Amino acid sequence: MSTLKATLEATTDAVTLNPGRASVKLEADGALVGPCEVRARVGDWTLVVDEPEALGGADAAPNPLQMALVALCSCQAITYRLWAEKKGITLDDVEVSVRGTTDIRGLLGVSGAARPGFTGVSIDVRISGPEDRDTYEELRRTVDAHCPVFDVFAAPLTVTTRLRGT
Amino acid sequence: MSTLKATLEATTDAVTLNPGRASVKLEADGALVGPCEVRARVGDWTLVVDEPEALGGADAAPNPLQMALVALCSCQAITYRLWAEKKGITLDDVEVSVRGTTDIRGLLGVSGAARPGFTGVSIDVRISGPEDRDTYEELRRTVDAHCPVFDVFAAPLTVTTRLRGT
Repeated sequence: MSTLKATLEATTDAVTLNPGRASVKLEADGALVGPCEVRARVGDWTLVVDEPEALGGADAAPNPLQMALVALCSCQAITYRLWAEKKGITLDDVEVSVRGTTDIRGLLGVSGAARPGFTGVSIDVRISGPEDRDTYEELRRTVDAHCPVFDVFAAPLTVTTRLRGT
Repeated sequence: MSTLKATLEATTDAVTLNPGRASVKLEADGALVGPCEVRARVGDWTLVVDEPEALGGADAAPNPLQMALVALCSCQAITYRLWAEKKGITLDDVEVSVRGTTDIRGLLGVSGAARPGFTGVSIDVRISGPEDRDTYEELRRTVDAHCPVFDVFAAPLTVTTRLRGT
């Protein structure tokens, strides 16, 4: 058994036997450090996000919707890896391209605007490996059913906001 | 008028007069470069995403759900800036903390699991500035209605996937 498959089986066993261990809390904190530039901390890492000049930024870093697409494309690629291991399907390479269209009238509040987020998202996945197409198509359906960020994009979610300390 | 406000008004005028200019296509591409490590390209930038060891990664970078939270917290902070400028509301500092809980049984396909993404997300915003609380509460409602990544998280969206070249 591969090291990755053994790790996944050990983690799966642990959270099956003790469901309380399955719940993971994640947090990110960000602060404006320029007109539109945000310095964000997540785990041990610091990331910078900015906007293009047309929205008053300095175009110094990816914008928030681009960061969301990075989350989606990486989550798809990793979920292919994990589920291929779980199912014993060989994958040599996985490349994922994610495209989203947004209408900035939503952000800017222009009358008649579309929603502020993406109006649509499409994902192209290029797999190389020895299995036949049907096997990879079945894998694709399994991945889309279990990919965490795919779920964040595709399905509704309750997000609560509150002001603190004002 | 501030430079930022003038930029926003110019962009708003441009997309109001010519709605075709409002549509923006964004793309991110990622490839597996390790067991779970993904190298992603977006715009002019390269970002790395990984998983913790319990999922077979090397914990070398944020995981995809953490990247999604960075997208959300930065989008909130920037949308506060933009709408404060538009409304003439003074903001001195904005800090945003985003917390999400996920149940990894969803990703791993454990029977009885929750959904694979977040089971809930909460956002705390700390604003400092001279306006009263009601003014900032009204700003919060406006931000949540126009924040692009808030919309990606909160509302359903059609995401299509296809395999290419297999």
